[in-house]
Amino acid sequence: MKLSEIASIIGAEFQGKDIEITGMNTLKDAKADEISFVSNAKYVKDIKDTNAAAVLVSQNAATEVPSGCLALMCENPYWSVAILSKYFAPAIEDDSLSAPKIGNNSKISPKAEIANGAVIGENCTILAHVYVGANAVIGDNSVLYPSVTVYRDCKIGNDCMIHANSVIGSDGFGFATNNLGEHKKIYQNGNVVIEDDVEIGSNTSIDRAVFGSTLIKKGTRIDNLVQIGHNCEIGEYSVMVSQSGLAGSTVLGRNVVMGGQAASAGHLNIAPFSTFAARSGITRSIKEPGKTYAGFPLMDHRTWLKLQAKLAKLLK
Amino acid sequence: MKLSEIASIIGAEFQGKDIEITGMNTLKDAKADEISFVSNAKYVKDIKDTNAAAVLVSQNAATEVPSGCLALMCENPYWSVAILSKYFAPAIEDDSLSAPKIGNNSKISPKAEIANGAVIGENCTILAHVYVGANAVIGDNSVLYPSVTVYRDCKIGNDCMIHANSVIGSDGFGFATNNLGEHKKIYQNGNVVIEDDVEIGSNTSIDRAVFGSTLIKKGTRIDNLVQIGHNCEIGEYSVMVSQSGLAGSTVLGRNVVMGGQAASAGHLNIAPFSTFAARSGITRSIKEPGKTYAGFPLMDHRTWLKLQAKLAKLLK
Amino acid sequence: MKLSEIASIIGAEFQGKDIEITGMNTLKDAKADEISFVSNAKYVKDIKDTNAAAVLVSQNAATEVPSGCLALMCENPYWSVAILSKYFAPAIEDDSLSAPKIGNNSKISPKAEIANGAVIGENCTILAHVYVGANAVIGDNSVLYPSVTVYRDCKIGNDCMIHANSVIGSDGFGFATNNLGEHKKIYQNGNVVIEDDVEIGSNTSIDRAVFGSTLIKKGTRIDNLVQIGHNCEIGEYSVMVSQSGLAGSTVLGRNVVMGGQAASAGHLNIAPFSTFAARSGITRSIKEPGKTYAGFPLMDHRTWLKLQAKLAKLLK
Repeated sequence: MKLSEIASIIGAEFQGKDIEITGMNTLKDAKADEISFVSNAKYVKDIKDTNAAAVLVSQNAATEVPSGCLALMCENPYWSVAILSKYFAPAIEDDSLSAPKIGNNSKISPKAEIANGAVIGENCTILAHVYVGANAVIGDNSVLYPSVTVYRDCKIGNDCMIHANSVIGSDGFGFATNNLGEHKKIYQNGNVVIEDDVEIGSNTSIDRAVFGSTLIKKGTRIDNLVQIGHNCEIGEYSVMVSQSGLAGSTVLGRNVVMGGQAASAGHLNIAPFSTFAARSGITRSIKEPGKTYAGFPLMDHRTWLKLQAKLAKLLK
Repeated sequence: MKLSEIASIIGAEFQGKDIEITGMNTLKDAKADEISFVSNAKYVKDIKDTNAAAVLVSQNAATEVPSGCLALMCENPYWSVAILSKYFAPAIEDDSLSAPKIGNNSKISPKAEIANGAVIGENCTILAHVYVGANAVIGDNSVLYPSVTVYRDCKIGNDCMIHANSVIGSDGFGFATNNLGEHKKIYQNGNVVIEDDVEIGSNTSIDRAVFGSTLIKKGTRIDNLVQIGHNCEIGEYSVMVSQSGLAGSTVLGRNVVMGGQAASAGHLNIAPFSTFAARSGITRSIKEPGKTYAGFPLMDHRTWLKLQAKLAKLLK
Repeated sequence: MKLSEIASIIGAEFQGKDIEITGMNTLKDAKADEISFVSNAKYVKDIKDTNAAAVLVSQNAATEVPSGCLALMCENPYWSVAILSKYFAPAIEDDSLSAPKIGNNSKISPKAEIANGAVIGENCTILAHVYVGANAVIGDNSVLYPSVTVYRDCKIGNDCMIHANSVIGSDGFGFATNNLGEHKKIYQNGNVVIEDDVEIGSNTSIDRAVFGSTLIKKGTRIDNLVQIGHNCEIGEYSVMVSQSGLAGSTVLGRNVVMGGQAASAGHLNIAPFSTFAARSGITRSIKEPGKTYAGFPLMDHRTWLKLQAKLAKLLK
C-alpha cells in the first residue's frame, strides 16, 4: 500500500516521497518499507532510532520524528494503528497458494484440513479434525491430536506433540479504545514459532504475535488449559503447569517452572531457572536466576511461608 | 404437554383447567401457558405476582399461590423441575427443519457442519470443523475459526469473530440434588445471544441460559479460556481477560474490565465502568460506577495496596 | 519385549531368566510379567513387596530388591522409565483392529471419526467432529457434543453427557529431567474410566493415567474448563465447578464439592462430603468428612472468615 493511501485512510496529512509500504512494526523492528507508531509517552524517546518509513504520532511527539522518516499525525495513534492493521492482515485462507506439501510417511487423516500453502514434514501423525492453516509449517515426527488448530503462518518444529483441542496462533488480545469507550481490533499479523521437542497439553491457547513471533523454545513442556499471550517468549526446557498463564510480551528464561494456576503480568523478564509455586502472581521482573517464589504480589517462597506463619499467629 | 400430564410425571395432585403448557420459566417471566417453581424460601414472596399457569411448590408455600394459578405440590420442587426440564428440551438436531440458509458471499468449509434450521448471514467465513446447531443464527461479516461450536438456538450478531475451539451455548451447570446426595440434570432450554462486533478468543466457554438468554452485548472483547456461566449478561464494550470467569446470572454493566484470572460469584450486579485487577474475587454487587477493585474478598484497589503494605510490615 | 532387551535399551546389566515383559507399572500394581521402578527415596521401603519381574533402581537401593526380582541398576531410574515408556506405548490408531461397533439406534454424525476397535453403545448421539479413539468404549444413551475428543482405550459409561471441545484421555503431564535440565516424556499408557451418569462441561481436560486409570465415578458433575490430572479418582456425585483443577493422583471421596477456580495439589486424599469454597488451594489431605474449607493455604472456612476480619482490622 502506498504511504499516501495510508495517510488518507487515517486522515493524516501526507508530504514527501510516496513509497510502497509492506507492513507495520514496532519502532525497533520496523524496516525502511514499514510504518510504526508511538501510542505511549514512554516510547517517545525511541522514535529517533527507528528505521520506519513513517511513524504515527500525536501532535506533541511529532517533533521527535527523525529526518527521513515521515510523521503521520493523528489524534489517537493507537486507534489509527487498529484501523490500518486490517489492511495489512492477510486472507485467512488463500486458494491461490500451492497445494499443501506432505512429507514421506506422514499420516494425515482425511478428516483433517490442511490449507493451501501449508507444509508438513516426514513421519508426522495428523489426526481427525486438525486444522493446519495457510503457510503453516510442521516439522518431522510431530503428532497433532484431534481438533488441534494451527493458524496460518505458524511454525512447529520436529518431534513436537500437541494434544487435542489446543490452539496455536489465535489472535492476541489487542484493541484500541476511543474516548467513547468503544474498541477497535488490532489485527495480529505476526505468528507463533514452536521449536523442536515441545509438548503441549489439551485445551491450551497460544496467541500469535501482533508483530513478529510468539516463541516457544526447544524442549519446553506446557500442560492443559494454559494461556500464552501474544509476543511471549518461553525459554528452553521451561515447564508451565495446568491453568497457568502469561500475559503478553513476557519473556521467560530457560528452565523456568510455573506451578498450577500461576500467572504473570505482561512485559516482564524472568531469569532462567526461576521457579514459581502454584498460584504465584508474578508482578515484577526477576533478574537473579535460580530462585523460588510464591504469592501475589510475588515474594520469595521463604518470605511467603513466613507470612503464612505470621497470619496463623494473628488468628490466635 | 398437558398440565395434567405434568402433574402426573412429578406425582402432584391435579385439579382445575387442563391447559397445554409450552415451557418452564422463572416466576417473573413465565407466561400464561408456562409453569414456574419456587425452590428457595426467599422467592416465596414473588409467587403472588406470577402469570404462570402453575407453580411447583413445597407444601408450606402453597398458600401463597394466587388464584387462577395452580399450586403443584411436591416434596423437592427443584428435583421436580429437573425431571420436567427434560420433557421441554428440544432435540439436539432435527432433520425435519429446513436446510440451512447461507447468505451471499459467505464461505463455508465443506468440513464445517451447519445443522438444519441454521441461518448464516452474508460475507461470513466459517472454517473447517465448525459446528452451527439447529436454528442457530449467525449475522453478516462474522468469522468462526476452526472447531468453534455454536449450540442450537444461539444467535451471533454481525461483525463478530470467534476464535478456534470456543464453545457458545453449552449447558449451564444446573442440577438438583436429593437427600441421598444424588444429582439430576436441569436441562438448559434457553440460549446465548451475542450482539454485533463482539470478539471471543480461543477455548472460551459461554453457557446457554436455563430459561431466557445469556447475553453478550455489543462491542465486548473476551479473551481465551474464559468462563461465562448461564444467564449472565455482559454490558457493551466490556473486557474479560484470559482465564477470568463469571458464575451464573451475574450482570456486568457497560465497559466493565475483568483482569486475568479474575472471577465473580453468581447473581451479582456490577456497575458500568468498574475495573477489576487481575485475580480479583468479586464477592458482592457494585453500585457505584467507575471504580477499581482488587483482592479476594473484594476491596477497593487502594485498600488492597494498603493491605499489602501492612502485610509487608508484619514481616519485618 | 524381552527383559534382556529392556536392560540393553537402558544400559543396565542383565542376568537371570529372560522372560517376556508386557508392561511397566507401579511397585504395588506390577504383575509378574511387568517391570517397575523406584525414583524417589521414600518408596524404597515398598520394593520388598513388589511382584514385578524387575525393578529399575539406583545403585544404593539395589540391595532392597527381593529375591526372584531382578534389579536393573541405572543412574537416573526415572529417565530410564521415560526411555522405556515409549516402547510400551501402543500406536495411536491401528488399522488392524476391527471396524468400530455401533449399537442400535445410535446416531453418529458422518463428520465424526470413530477409530477401529472402538465400541459405541445403544441410543447414543455422537455429533460432528467428535473423535473416539482405538478401543475406546462408550456406553448406552450417552451424548458427545461436537469436537469432543476421546483418546484410545478410554471408557465412558451409560447416560453420560460430554459437552463440546472437552478432551478425555490426553496424556498426563509426565516427564523425567536430567542434570542438564532436559526433559524426556513419560508415555502415559493408562486410560480414563468414566462411570455412568456423569456430565462434563465444555473445554474440560481429563488426563489419562500413566499406569492404570484416571477414574470419575458415578453421578459426578464437572463444569467447563476444569483440569483433572493423571491418576486422579473422583468419588460418586462429586461436583467440580468451572476452572477448578486437580493435580495428579489426588483422590476425592464421594460428594466432594470444589468451588470455582479451586485447586488441589497432587497425591492427596480428600474425605467424602468435603466442600471447598471458590479458589480454595488444597494443600493437605482431609480425613474428617463433611467439613467446609477455604483459602490458600487451606483452612477451615470459619477460620478463613476470621482471618479476613483480622485483616480488615489491621487496615483501620
